[in-house]
Amino acid sequence: MALDPQRGFFITLEGGEGSGKSTQARRLNVLLRRMGRDVVLTREPGGTTHGEAIREMLLSGLIRPFGSEAEALFFAVARREHVLHLIRPALEEGQVVVCDRFADSTRAYQGVAGVPQETILRLEEIALTGTQPDLTLILDIDPAVGLARAAGRSAADRFEADELALHEARRHAFLAIAKAEPERCVVIDASLTADEIAAQIEAAVGARLPRATGTS
Amino acid sequence: MALDPQRGFFITLEGGEGSGKSTQARRLNVLLRRMGRDVVLTREPGGTTHGEAIREMLLSGLIRPFGSEAEALFFAVARREHVLHLIRPALEEGQVVVCDRFADSTRAYQGVAGVPQETILRLEEIALTGTQPDLTLILDIDPAVGLARAAGRSAADRFEADELALHEARRHAFLAIAKAEPERCVVIDASLTADEIAAQIEAAVGARLPRATGTS
Repeated sequence: MALDPQRGFFITLEGGEGSGKSTQARRLNVLLRRMGRDVVLTREPGGTTHGEAIREMLLSGLIRPFGSEAEALFFAVARREHVLHLIRPALEEGQVVVCDRFADSTRAYQGVAGVPQETILRLEEIALTGTQPDLTLILDIDPAVGLARAAGRSAADRFEADELALHEARRHAFLAIAKAEPERCVVIDASLTADEIAAQIEAAVGARLPRATGTS
Repeated sequence: MALDPQRGFFITLEGGEGSGKSTQARRLNVLLRRMGRDVVLTREPGGTTHGEAIREMLLSGLIRPFGSEAEALFFAVARREHVLHLIRPALEEGQVVVCDRFADSTRAYQGVAGVPQETILRLEEIALTGTQPDLTLILDIDPAVGLARAAGRSAADRFEADELALHEARRHAFLAIAKAEPERCVVIDASLTADEIAAQIEAAVGARLPRATGTS
């Protein structure tokens, strides 16, 4: 059996709090497996041992006194490990990687928090080392609605606890990314039911995912 | 029994690779316990769950592509957790804390690597939040001798692998700190045998450690 020369496919889900990213990432995982694809479902920050440790540090607020640039750096370090040790190896084996948050979250969250664009892009370059998403699903929702959903789930973490204006600025940052990179990004209306959101995602993925080559 | 109002005593050991810090920290722990003190022996980076994770990230070289300022920040985050969750609570209970490396290592290592002094002091302020060592033992040794000792131990880590000139610059940085803060710092000749080094440390600690108040 020859090595499959086809590279995998890298899908990221992005959006604000309570937009349903984690639920939809799990549903997309099931859908893709039903389509016969090998899937790696992962999330950021996290996905690797150090990444999960950094996730805890960030969400607990430990990094916060050092400022937004420090937070951006911690995300970037976790992302670099994630790319090098999990995402890229999976893509090289031809798998579909579904990742709950990725580099656009740093652009939106830390960008809105005042980290210079230049710093964000430099960190992104070191973290991604050339591995870009093939498709980014931006789950768009009015933050007031999203936060109400997230509040029903658990105590607010470091980022959920920010004020509404900040959440609105992040929403606009995500939409600006989608507008700037229409080949990569699809905006999904996340104010609908979970089934309706899943249907939009299925259409977007179906239209972009290359057909699998037959196994030999 | 009334609460002991006496604050504990905070001792740090600093110096280059192979200067014997870890060995001497363990010996100092034994000495202090023999003197009837409650001792917490700890190290940096490390000492807490997140701190140990950050230690692994730093020593593995994962942070290095992000530059020396990034490394300084990771050390500072680990230090902040260490101070808040281990060092300060122990001092508040009147214990003696012996720490293998602390803020002076960041000054020497990342300072020599080109991180601006202003950045280092700002990170130090956030990390220490007012908790300064009462006594810093600077174990001074010719880097060529120290590295030969360290090489006998294990594979070189991220910092040991640097070139000799860098190690020499760090040595001078440690000596400059000692000169600038003579009330806090004592330079120990670490070229001698372990027993002779321990004797110098015993003298320095004995001269500075406040007498324990009797337990009641």
